[in-house]
Amino acid sequence: MQPQKRKLTYHVAATLDGFIAREDDSFDCFANEGDHVTEYLATLRTYGAVVMGRRTYDIGLKFNVTDPYPYLETYVVSRTLKERPNPRVHLISEDVVGAVRALKAQEGKDIYLAGGGALATQLFTAGLVDEVLVKLNPVLLGAGIPLVSRLGSHLNLELLSTKVYRAGVVLLQYAVKH
Amino acid sequence: MQPQKRKLTYHVAATLDGFIAREDDSFDCFANEGDHVTEYLATLRTYGAVVMGRRTYDIGLKFNVTDPYPYLETYVVSRTLKERPNPRVHLISEDVVGAVRALKAQEGKDIYLAGGGALATQLFTAGLVDEVLVKLNPVLLGAGIPLVSRLGSHLNLELLSTKVYRAGVVLLQYAVKH
Repeated sequence: MQPQKRKLTYHVAATLDGFIAREDDSFDCFANEGDHVTEYLATLRTYGAVVMGRRTYDIGLKFNVTDPYPYLETYVVSRTLKERPNPRVHLISEDVVGAVRALKAQEGKDIYLAGGGALATQLFTAGLVDEVLVKLNPVLLGAGIPLVSRLGSHLNLELLSTKVYRAGVVLLQYAVKH
Repeated sequence: MQPQKRKLTYHVAATLDGFIAREDDSFDCFANEGDHVTEYLATLRTYGAVVMGRRTYDIGLKFNVTDPYPYLETYVVSRTLKERPNPRVHLISEDVVGAVRALKAQEGKDIYLAGGGALATQLFTAGLVDEVLVKLNPVLLGAGIPLVSRLGSHLNLELLSTKVYRAGVVLLQYAVKH
C-alpha cells in the first residue's frame, strides 16, 4: 500500500444532534454569518484539494456554481455524472477508496473532505479519514442527513482542540484513532 | 397555565454524531472514568428531582438497582409498569406533559431529565425543556438511540458554557430558546 502523505479532514457543520443538513439537503438552520464563517473560509485555503459527494456538489450547482472551491484541486464522487460540469472538476466515478488513497499518497497540502455523510462513512470505514473538524451549531434538528451512518463499528476519536465562536458555534477538532 | 419555578435540564452523554446509546441501549463506548464523571456525579446532587423514561430506568433495573438516584425525588414515565419497583419511585403513567408541567410549578431545586431520547423529544415539543447539558464523547457510533427524534420543527439553542475534560469529553451547556 502507498504511504499516505496528506491528511484527509472531514470538515463539516453539524447540529448538536449530529445532522449536517435537513433531509431535503437544506441547511438554513446553521449560523451563516460571524467570526466562525470568516475563519472557516480562511482555513479552507490551507487545504490543497477537496473531495465531495455529488449531492454536496449539487448544492453549489443549484446556484450555477460549477467550481465551488477555485483555489483547491476539486474531486467530485459520482456514478451518474458523465461529463465534468467545469474543466477544473475531476470526477471519481469508480473505486472511490482507491482514488482517495492515491490522492493521499501524492505530495501536496492536506485534503478537505466536504461531505456528505455517505461519502464520509465510506472513507471512515476504509480508514482513510485522519481528522474530524466539526462546526457544532447550537441547534437540534431531530432528523436530517447524518454526519456518518452505519459504520462497521464505532470509531474512537482524540480531542485535539476546541474553540468557541460568538454565534455559539463550537469548533471541535479530533484525530481519528486507528 | 401554572408558573414554572424549576428548570428542567436534559443532561445526557452523547457521541459526536448525536447518539445517547447503541440501538441495544448499551453505552460502553462512553468514557466512564475521569474528572468528567466525578463532576457529573457532583452536579447530580444540585438537582431536586429526576424524570426518566422506562428504558432509561431499566438500565439500573438490570443490575437490581431500583432507586438509581436515592438523593433525588424520582419519577419514571411508563405506560406498562403497574407497580412501583421501589417505594421511592413515582410512576407517571399518563399525561406526561401535564405531570412534568405540574412538577415544574412546584417549589424545589431544578429537575434532571435523564433520558431517553423519546421522552426528551416529547418534552422538547411541549416546550418544557429549559437547558441541555451534553457530555459530548469523542466517538462516532453511526447508529443508535438519538439525542432527540422527529421534533416538530428545529430548536434553536443558546450556548451558555463549555468545559473540556481529560478524556476528551466536552461538556456543552445550552439554554433552549423559546
